[in-house]
Amino acid sequence: MADEQKTAAPPSEAPPASAPATDAAAGADAGADGEAGPSKKALKKAEAKAKKEAEKAKRAAEREAATAAAKAKEDTEDKAKDNYGDREIVTLSAPKVALRDYNDDHIGKPVKLRAWVQNSRMQGAKMCFVELREIGDWSIQGVIAASPDGEPVSKQMVKWVGAISLESYVAVEATVQKPLDPVKSCRVSNYELHITKIYCIARGPEMLGLTMNASNAAISSFDVDGKMQELSVSDAAPGQSATLETHLENIIMHKRAPLQQAIQTVRENVRDLFAEYLKKNDFHSFEPPCLIGAASEGGANVFGLPYFGKSAYLAQSPQFYKQMEIAGGRKRVYCIGPVFRAENSNTPRHMTEFTGLDIEMEIEESYHEVIYTLEGVLKHIFRNLEERCKDEIALVRSIYPSEPFKLPEDGKEVRLTFAEGQKLLREEGPEEFRNVTDDEDMSTPQEKALGAIIRKKYGTDFYVLDKFPESARPFYAKEDPANPQVTNAYDFFMRGQEIMSGGQRINLPAELEARMRKKGVDPNASGLKEYVNVFRQGGCPPHGGGGIGLDRVVAFYLNLPNVQLAAYYPRTPSRLFP
Amino acid sequence: MADEQKTAAPPSEAPPASAPATDAAAGADAGADGEAGPSKKALKKAEAKAKKEAEKAKRAAEREAATAAAKAKEDTEDKAKDNYGDREIVTLSAPKVALRDYNDDHIGKPVKLRAWVQNSRMQGAKMCFVELREIGDWSIQGVIAASPDGEPVSKQMVKWVGAISLESYVAVEATVQKPLDPVKSCRVSNYELHITKIYCIARGPEMLGLTMNASNAAISSFDVDGKMQELSVSDAAPGQSATLETHLENIIMHKRAPLQQAIQTVRENVRDLFAEYLKKNDFHSFEPPCLIGAASEGGANVFGLPYFGKSAYLAQSPQFYKQMEIAGGRKRVYCIGPVFRAENSNTPRHMTEFTGLDIEMEIEESYHEVIYTLEGVLKHIFRNLEERCKDEIALVRSIYPSEPFKLPEDGKEVRLTFAEGQKLLREEGPEEFRNVTDDEDMSTPQEKALGAIIRKKYGTDFYVLDKFPESARPFYAKEDPANPQVTNAYDFFMRGQEIMSGGQRINLPAELEARMRKKGVDPNASGLKEYVNVFRQGGCPPHGGGGIGLDRVVAFYLNLPNVQLAAYYPRTPSRLFP
Repeated sequence: MADEQKTAAPPSEAPPASAPATDAAAGADAGADGEAGPSKKALKKAEAKAKKEAEKAKRAAEREAATAAAKAKEDTEDKAKDNYGDREIVTLSAPKVALRDYNDDHIGKPVKLRAWVQNSRMQGAKMCFVELREIGDWSIQGVIAASPDGEPVSKQMVKWVGAISLESYVAVEATVQKPLDPVKSCRVSNYELHITKIYCIARGPEMLGLTMNASNAAISSFDVDGKMQELSVSDAAPGQSATLETHLENIIMHKRAPLQQAIQTVRENVRDLFAEYLKKNDFHSFEPPCLIGAASEGGANVFGLPYFGKSAYLAQSPQFYKQMEIAGGRKRVYCIGPVFRAENSNTPRHMTEFTGLDIEMEIEESYHEVIYTLEGVLKHIFRNLEERCKDEIALVRSIYPSEPFKLPEDGKEVRLTFAEGQKLLREEGPEEFRNVTDDEDMSTPQEKALGAIIRKKYGTDFYVLDKFPESARPFYAKEDPANPQVTNAYDFFMRGQEIMSGGQRINLPAELEARMRKKGVDPNASGLKEYVNVFRQGGCPPHGGGGIGLDRVVAFYLNLPNVQLAAYYPRTPSRLFP
Repeated sequence: MADEQKTAAPPSEAPPASAPATDAAAGADAGADGEAGPSKKALKKAEAKAKKEAEKAKRAAEREAATAAAKAKEDTEDKAKDNYGDREIVTLSAPKVALRDYNDDHIGKPVKLRAWVQNSRMQGAKMCFVELREIGDWSIQGVIAASPDGEPVSKQMVKWVGAISLESYVAVEATVQKPLDPVKSCRVSNYELHITKIYCIARGPEMLGLTMNASNAAISSFDVDGKMQELSVSDAAPGQSATLETHLENIIMHKRAPLQQAIQTVRENVRDLFAEYLKKNDFHSFEPPCLIGAASEGGANVFGLPYFGKSAYLAQSPQFYKQMEIAGGRKRVYCIGPVFRAENSNTPRHMTEFTGLDIEMEIEESYHEVIYTLEGVLKHIFRNLEERCKDEIALVRSIYPSEPFKLPEDGKEVRLTFAEGQKLLREEGPEEFRNVTDDEDMSTPQEKALGAIIRKKYGTDFYVLDKFPESARPFYAKEDPANPQVTNAYDFFMRGQEIMSGGQRINLPAELEARMRKKGVDPNASGLKEYVNVFRQGGCPPHGGGGIGLDRVVAFYLNLPNVQLAAYYPRTPSRLFP
């Protein structure tokens, strides 16, 4: 059995008492055997020194022996010695109760808990307070006080608890009690644990690479190598906050902070709410491949790799595969998975790998069916998030302040055409956007300015821009039959930032080929030829959809300064670790 | 507006009636202006020929004009002309009822339906039967018969319907009726549709690359370039089945077949049941990255790619990231996503990209907690699958026969140690396995032989082998404290084939480093150093888990001959399309 704890708390290995003396004597002997013999005086001096050192070592050994004997006596006398210590596996008989489930019925009763030591504070030699964190921000105060007769808690046990390093993982048996005053530093403020047993399962380091306080504060800088645009600097006191770099180098502390756990919970709920709504609306889930045979959506920004003597690419979106599912008879599909962009973009909105929430559906009578469905799923997410993640959202806001996310009432959704959006910008936007035209795509600053106008005018942070100019959309976008200058394609926005692009796709092969040629795309290129042919294999219904960036939805909803905070393991041009 | 249907059914463009005559005259003139003048006889002959051709062209033009006039008259007289035709968007006022929801209340009432033409058969000139497939195997017989007064259905309309190519997508308005006899060829056998309007939205090809009958039959061969091992040849009649190669080249027809849709539905349910069970048991979902900075689980079988001047790799499993989630305080996590293996393995069980269902959880008192949880989730999947996918399983069995999947009763789960498994093989297995030893890993044939013994002996297709030899498990596997020759690691099996590997992982950094050195792995190598350090950043609880191959679970449950049939877009060393 490998007992790891030896490393964390090595037993003091006293050197053999005679060792220094022997070494000194050996040194003298070596001298005596040497070419140039030392003087008598020197020999005497050495002898005296050796004697002195031997005496010293002897005394030290005696002291250590006395200490060890005292310790042994103490241990023998430590009636609590089985109630604490380092253990790999701990079995406790008290019932397990999650901190979130504590109530007055538990008062006076024993419980068990497995948690991280978040803080500890000795009160004299006989009492110690420990803050125990179970998960997220669920923490409770533990009290350990030496029993008058040394049982169940001895003075040694209290001392041992006080010396446990922060972020160690412990198993505790305790009685639930009411504290004299509510414990402000813990989420569970109305109960405390009177500890009777405590075992350390895995020790934290002597010195944390990132303290919990700093990990739970706003990031001080997102910069890496001076590349990140639009830095966000927190107001936290120096030493109380750290850079994203430090957070990611200390991934465990980054993740353990209640802030990051709250963000993760929000993200998890966005994902679940997305799937939940679609399933209820007859969507089927599927898994598109990441490895594809051709850089079919354009050669730029695609990762390539050697593949058994050929080349493979990483999918930039599941677009073609969603369409194949529709052509393949599934009518309505969604998928949740990674997408890859080989863009050297160091902005708060870009990552090289992110999670896409993708939808594709048959269009029956109008492509607006798709817009309504996409609005429906996003409203479902936002509304339920407010309910399900109330505490988490409040926690995040306490660190990254934001105004509540404004939603339109049902029936009052804001859907502007691209041209109407440009008109608003020209008429009500800042000076520099007075001359924007209807046939060129919007820049990020334009989008943000429009978001501000719309919030003021319509009272919503969520809206749709429809009918994007033909020139701004890819070859598979369906032109508006009534006005081929624009497409049946839209973007969805949150707080003035794009979270989704989508539209109706061309479903008829001849039309698709014609638009490809018009856009200067070769319908016979590898990957594209196969794509066009799919629509020739069997009649494919009209269809449309969209792709939502999960990381962006979370970041923009919570108004986080950088999308990397919403990711589990952000991937950027300069970062592949952890 | 781009009217694609022109391509599918081009209007007959008659050449101008005078054209051939004019051309012939021009030819004669050119001859007259030439250097060597033709003889009078030749001139006369040419004149006669031109005259004759002009006559011929005139007559042809007259005939065409007459036909066109007749057609025009017919069209004018076609009282049904607005009730059929090629349309891009069709709006119908009858209520939409899914085929699965038809009941006697619908008899005599109008409905609308959007479906693929799966078959059609003219009965004389006035009546036509069409099989309409909505989704999966939900099909119904449509009848279109010319009305005595040509309204709502004309003879022309019936003829037009009879000529619609198979696998075209149509929108139909019809009255629900009881057929004289149940329609055996359709799933909805007790109702039929008396069509009053029918529009073709997207035309199928004149000749299908793969017929529905062949697509819905067992695959005749999985071979590619003579590489695939263990070929499975179906018993279908020649011409009635096709190779996997043909299926994948005709992905749309492959996907539309009721067989493949049934498999997809089973797959979708396995995935949903997995997530459902885990969520109920306090597991959190997360998304691990695919792009990683080092080939951390061993250099072989990993895809590498250039990444902004450095190298990136595709994750072979989310193993390290699941562990970071546990160390990061999430206690119980799962993830569903792609994993990549650069193995040149052409077997019925291998793909280069597949979907992993991964679990990791804190171990509180015994690593058996993990085994029980994994058994729990798989039993939950298998039991509910039987209920939720009854029809789909029956459909698959009608094409790929299999015995029902046998599950153990609760409390009678079969968990053997690896050594017990080897003993069974030695004592009750085939001759060639009489000498298997306890310290070498099992081969695939050994696993299958053991599966057969266990089915016979214990009546289950689902079981666990535990305590794999130390030598057979990776450096992060926890050795059994009671016997370091074996590990706290297990495989799960279905019908004698491995679907999951898992075990307890080492959670203490010193123990991890020591085992790495023992296994000849450098703890300071890139990727591994960062991995070990994670456990030093804060105390990490003991934990364990496992990774399930989704494609394998589906394939083995349904007893499909090849895992590629369970994938949406299979990826193998020789295939990256579609």
